[in-house]
Amino acid sequence: PNRYLSSLPTTVFTVMSQLAFKHDAINLGQGFPDTEGPADIIAVAAEALKDNRNQYAPLTGLPELREAVAASNQRFYGLEIDPATEVVVTSGATEALAACLMAVVEAGDEVVLIEPLYDTYLPMLKLIGAVPKCVRLQPPHWDLPEKELRAAFGPKTKAMILNSPMNPAGKVFSRAELDLIAELVRDHDAYVVCDEVYEHLTFHVKHIPLMTLPDMRERCMRIGSAGKSFSLTGWKVGYVTASAALASVIAKAHQVMVFATAPNLQRAVAHGLNKDDEYYQGLSADLELRRDLLRNGLNRLGFETLPADGSYFIVADITGHAQGRTDVEFAKWLVEQAGVATIPVSAFYDPGGPAAPQNLIRFAFCKKPEILEEALCRLEKAL
Amino acid sequence: PNRYLSSLPTTVFTVMSQLAFKHDAINLGQGFPDTEGPADIIAVAAEALKDNRNQYAPLTGLPELREAVAASNQRFYGLEIDPATEVVVTSGATEALAACLMAVVEAGDEVVLIEPLYDTYLPMLKLIGAVPKCVRLQPPHWDLPEKELRAAFGPKTKAMILNSPMNPAGKVFSRAELDLIAELVRDHDAYVVCDEVYEHLTFHVKHIPLMTLPDMRERCMRIGSAGKSFSLTGWKVGYVTASAALASVIAKAHQVMVFATAPNLQRAVAHGLNKDDEYYQGLSADLELRRDLLRNGLNRLGFETLPADGSYFIVADITGHAQGRTDVEFAKWLVEQAGVATIPVSAFYDPGGPAAPQNLIRFAFCKKPEILEEALCRLEKAL
Ligand SMILES: CSCCC(=O)C(=O)O
Ligand SMILES: CSCCC(=O)C(=O)O
Repeated sequence: PNRYLSSLPTTVFTVMSQLAFKHDAINLGQGFPDTEGPADIIAVAAEALKDNRNQYAPLTGLPELREAVAASNQRFYGLEIDPATEVVVTSGATEALAACLMAVVEAGDEVVLIEPLYDTYLPMLKLIGAVPKCVRLQPPHWDLPEKELRAAFGPKTKAMILNSPMNPAGKVFSRAELDLIAELVRDHDAYVVCDEVYEHLTFHVKHIPLMTLPDMRERCMRIGSAGKSFSLTGWKVGYVTASAALASVIAKAHQVMVFATAPNLQRAVAHGLNKDDEYYQGLSADLELRRDLLRNGLNRLGFETLPADGSYFIVADITGHAQGRTDVEFAKWLVEQAGVATIPVSAFYDPGGPAAPQNLIRFAFCKKPEILEEALCRLEKAL
Repeated sequence: PNRYLSSLPTTVFTVMSQLAFKHDAINLGQGFPDTEGPADIIAVAAEALKDNRNQYAPLTGLPELREAVAASNQRFYGLEIDPATEVVVTSGATEALAACLMAVVEAGDEVVLIEPLYDTYLPMLKLIGAVPKCVRLQPPHWDLPEKELRAAFGPKTKAMILNSPMNPAGKVFSRAELDLIAELVRDHDAYVVCDEVYEHLTFHVKHIPLMTLPDMRERCMRIGSAGKSFSLTGWKVGYVTASAALASVIAKAHQVMVFATAPNLQRAVAHGLNKDDEYYQGLSADLELRRDLLRNGLNRLGFETLPADGSYFIVADITGHAQGRTDVEFAKWLVEQAGVATIPVSAFYDPGGPAAPQNLIRFAFCKKPEILEEALCRLEKAL
């Protein structure tokens, strides 16, 4: 069997979810909401099964979904997107990410990444044979270090992956940071895979797609996720917005990897994307309340928390409580002894790179308030 | 952008479906049924959206679907499969194929293929950097040439792709042919990706999974497709059966490429797999009637047809009618002038290999009898 894949561990999300199940723990590890998405979207998905459209969808997605994706780009970011040539629907954002990387990166190319990073980025690059160049955000404020970022770009740079709002850091990149990134991308004639799955989940901070910056329209592949925007993570419907030149190559990767996505889910997501402002505001306001609840509780228990302006996640410093344990050991102890599953943040660093911080764990707050309260109670009891 | 993907043409299925649409033609090109799958399966998929199970499914699939896949292996082929460790659910058979190839093949490895072949096999191998070794079935009987097959295997052979029942040839490999293949696979210590998506669509010929032959249990990755078994090609639910050692690596590829598949569709497919013998017999009997209708009609019009014992497809020799046109030209003429879309069989050969036959076109017969009749009328008028 393929040596690299054989050596790759099962994703930490699955490992922690299994541990959570085993220990009957509250699962604040894997990022998925414990409440369902909007009933009307689910109803559309159910209805859409019943009118004879269950055969192959078109390769790049149903026209109605591509139109809804284009309209949503216009509405939220003023981006003019041609639904016929500039949108590719995928089987989730993970597939979108794989397809975008396959579309622009070849063996030997360098790709700039920002750590902590989502756990499929590096494996996908390794499978392609690309060379990752990681830059680390600096706790406790998740600052982007300019000097290191400049140093990561070079003559072999082909692309960058930018995840904003960011998992696990909860960071939403500022305009100044994006300006710096855009400058480097432009100067190095690079592409950017913009993982923006949490685009609608920000808390009083504006999400700015890098694609909206000068000269970035043709360089960026912007990935969105119905799972995240509509709290239906299991549906695995994603979408990429990119120039026609890039979208056509992304579509080829999609053709070889998966080909198409279930029509009824696509139709429901098209319906979802057209939801009114109240929906999107409610989604983030609701999540912000949960972040506050968990953050305040963690602080009360003596955990310092790092800023978290977007996504499902907040990172806590365990130094005061860990008694010398690493994040991995502490997370294991928490799930077994406290009955609360989390994710050790070291899992989000390149295992081949310098030692990762071992004092941080990630909590998902996309859970019911009473569940978050119960998790805090359990933590209090155990500590 | 990636040079290989940029150079890859859009799949011929999409191209011909678009031409069919443009010319208001009857689409006997892309292989999908024009009738829906069983209403009860669709009803389960709709109901399954409504009980709070719309978040991420487990990486390798829902337990109920893995159990149904294992049970179906037992029931149809006597294979004992452990649902916990030997089944991986994928987003369609295309993803299953990509994951299986990624799991066992590395750059530089040789992979034996049989032409004519399905159109994602070669691109996926190219992306991996593997070296395809193609062996051609010989018209007019789609014979497997033993000498050439033996010659295709060598010290660098890592794997073979075996598609039976076969698209586009409609061939179901015989026990004698499978014995030969098994011998070569064993002698060269190779793996086999068994694309068996048409396993239940055979016409009075028994489909034998290579995996059931001596020494093949640990070497074969057997791919099934809910789309094909339940006439719901748009759902994109596939499943791989393989030894635990291989399945764990396939799961890693799936983790990096897609991660999981919609739970409601998985639950509906689990329900579908448990259907009684009458369902499966009806499915193939029904399709056989359509094959007969189309075959007899084509023969009446003076087309010789090649044997087609399984799948959705029958191949016809156009020599008598083509007036010097190649299969590509003739297929173009047919869709424009006769209003019938087909697929030129040369599209199923390695574009980098020796000249492909240019006298064959593929018809899909998975269409309503009245549609097939109408297509035959149109052909008769145009010829
Ligand atoms: C694909 S499972 C992981 C979900 C997620 O995005 C996370 O927990 O970080
Ligand atoms: C994925 S579209 C192609 C469908 C099919 O299997 C075929 O027409 O050969």
